[in-house]
Amino acid sequence: MMIPRPPPPSLRVALRAGWSSIVVSPSSCIPATHRAHSSSPTTYPALVYDKYGRHDEILKVAHLPLPPVSATTVNVKFLASPINPADINQLQGTYPLKPPFNPTIGGAIGGNEGVAEVISVGDGVRGIHVGDWVIPVASGSGTWRTHAQYEAEDVLKLESEGVSKIIAATISVNPSTAYRMLKDFDNLQPGDVVIQNGANSGVGQSVIQLAKAWGFRTVNIVRQRPDLDELKHQLHALGADMVITEEDARRTDVAAQVKQLGPPPRLALNCVGGKSATNMVRLLGHDAHLVTYGGMSKEPVTLPTSAFIFKNLSAHGFWMTRWYDAHSHDDQRARMLSALLALARTARLREPWHDLNSFRAEDPVDRLRELAVTAIDKAGRGFGSRKQIFEFE
Amino acid sequence: MMIPRPPPPSLRVALRAGWSSIVVSPSSCIPATHRAHSSSPTTYPALVYDKYGRHDEILKVAHLPLPPVSATTVNVKFLASPINPADINQLQGTYPLKPPFNPTIGGAIGGNEGVAEVISVGDGVRGIHVGDWVIPVASGSGTWRTHAQYEAEDVLKLESEGVSKIIAATISVNPSTAYRMLKDFDNLQPGDVVIQNGANSGVGQSVIQLAKAWGFRTVNIVRQRPDLDELKHQLHALGADMVITEEDARRTDVAAQVKQLGPPPRLALNCVGGKSATNMVRLLGHDAHLVTYGGMSKEPVTLPTSAFIFKNLSAHGFWMTRWYDAHSHDDQRARMLSALLALARTARLREPWHDLNSFRAEDPVDRLRELAVTAIDKAGRGFGSRKQIFEFE
Repeated sequence: MMIPRPPPPSLRVALRAGWSSIVVSPSSCIPATHRAHSSSPTTYPALVYDKYGRHDEILKVAHLPLPPVSATTVNVKFLASPINPADINQLQGTYPLKPPFNPTIGGAIGGNEGVAEVISVGDGVRGIHVGDWVIPVASGSGTWRTHAQYEAEDVLKLESEGVSKIIAATISVNPSTAYRMLKDFDNLQPGDVVIQNGANSGVGQSVIQLAKAWGFRTVNIVRQRPDLDELKHQLHALGADMVITEEDARRTDVAAQVKQLGPPPRLALNCVGGKSATNMVRLLGHDAHLVTYGGMSKEPVTLPTSAFIFKNLSAHGFWMTRWYDAHSHDDQRARMLSALLALARTARLREPWHDLNSFRAEDPVDRLRELAVTAIDKAGRGFGSRKQIFEFE
Repeated sequence: MMIPRPPPPSLRVALRAGWSSIVVSPSSCIPATHRAHSSSPTTYPALVYDKYGRHDEILKVAHLPLPPVSATTVNVKFLASPINPADINQLQGTYPLKPPFNPTIGGAIGGNEGVAEVISVGDGVRGIHVGDWVIPVASGSGTWRTHAQYEAEDVLKLESEGVSKIIAATISVNPSTAYRMLKDFDNLQPGDVVIQNGANSGVGQSVIQLAKAWGFRTVNIVRQRPDLDELKHQLHALGADMVITEEDARRTDVAAQVKQLGPPPRLALNCVGGKSATNMVRLLGHDAHLVTYGGMSKEPVTLPTSAFIFKNLSAHGFWMTRWYDAHSHDDQRARMLSALLALARTARLREPWHDLNSFRAEDPVDRLRELAVTAIDKAGRGFGSRKQIFEFE
């Protein structure tokens, strides 16, 4: 317990990839060799912040240098990067993963997920080639930018054939979170029932599809809203077995319908908290697990003592970043990625509902900034079902 | 999941031991043989209830027959039986383990724990002898009575040498709960720190002593009270490292003191709920477990979403009855009992603070009833530190 541990990959990458391109070390022993790519620019625009707060007050566009590759690095061109809820919390300073501010780039670069195409490869790099699609190994490296230079070991090559850039750009967070939560907390069997709230969220959409692919039934709770029927239709189209509102979840006839679906549910996935989590617990059977991965209501998770003691409920948290850190040295990540991509290729895992926000390197700074602020506005709006994605052109 | 399971021992015993003595089955193939014991009565007084409610309104004294032993049964004379909080909940009908009411004995017999001396043994019984001390295998059999007849397989023989009847009467619930919670949720090592609230409860006293015996440090939270200094002194005398109030638990200087005790605490034991549980979570380190075994505040367990996600908190329930049911076919119970008795013999596990309530078989019914009502009154009074125990003479 007292042995000092190496920094987790999320921090290693944050410490390195964010500005590796601008640290000039004259005493470096590694010769700066590279194979130039026709479209490789010398600078690129990035969305940068140097204090925490509202995105419209702190986010800036900076043009950063993209040096030639060294022996161990690759230069990449981002294709698409989503705006996830955690990215916004990171800007606000309320997220525990805080990429350090580096004065030479004017802060930290926003975004934690995205897919990039390799445009230049260092001579010492094996297994990565120009044209490959890669994703950052860890969060915190800054993905809201058109280009980047990474140490080759800090990117993961994707088997991109038959996979859209939208899937590739969003596969590391939402579908991976759904995958782990469905796999790691109970030994679910085909026919078993899973309950989730915030079912129209990015993770929620993934849960429905993975559960469908693996033969689990899903009870999906969403908030009452004007377009409820349309939303229900969309979630059923993804594979949802039941879609109910928070109010429905408290009704005894709905509880009876849940019972009809299969064995008493033993897994509930919570991204809301407050009463919504309590509602789900009422629908759970004995020995069930409640996994919390978000808290959109900003209310704590409130659970009856009797559920813990007499129903033997266990409540856990899940944080994808922690999982990646804990599994940086085994092959579980590669196996998960491969399984998710296989589902995507066969249309059993579809692109999240999304809007594209076209971020063009040649656009003026003010226009890029306005685009970013508007996109983050949309992403942060209540329980939005549509993922906002920067598309880099 | 769909395979029908045999009823758990707690129910089996409830279905059998409660009135086995009065069911007369003329077609029984088992001859009614017995070795009479000099002091064996033909009837005995028991505290019986036939509806749920306040103990002073529902509890009655009934004289029930004690038939001679059959080949497979033993007759016993209770020595001492405690009043545990769950016993009172059982009378109120709010406890999930509900011994069925049997009209031939006028309801169900109160009490779930106690120690008895064997006074008569069936010819077919092996390994149990007159004079042995036994405890009921499972809760729900009714222990608030001077005598009982049990199937031999439904009692557990105690190695009683060097153990008081108070220890023996109370070892199956409180010390066993403490034992399991300290052993089963984290792999604690000497020097590790455990936090608990309701630290002066029966379980709390056991937690302090077992932790001391095993080299764990304890942070013990109690409610502010007039005799706080005396209580602190008593808990320190049991082996407590820190004793603090709920108000203290929110102070940053106290949090700093907890940090000085050892590694960040990874186990918190909760019998209160509400804010008290939340206070404990603030003092926990990463990857910690919160185990709830009671809810004295009658408020739900309220936990910050961030603790689940970013501190990787897990919250569980613990119910001794469930554990006994799940381990009725292995030797873990015997090993635990043996370990606890060994600690008791060396004064590392002491009798709980208690009051004896002398329940004499020859006393008039009204007097016995008044004695019981008064004892249960005392047991149910707030966060009482003193266990009320019926002593049978």
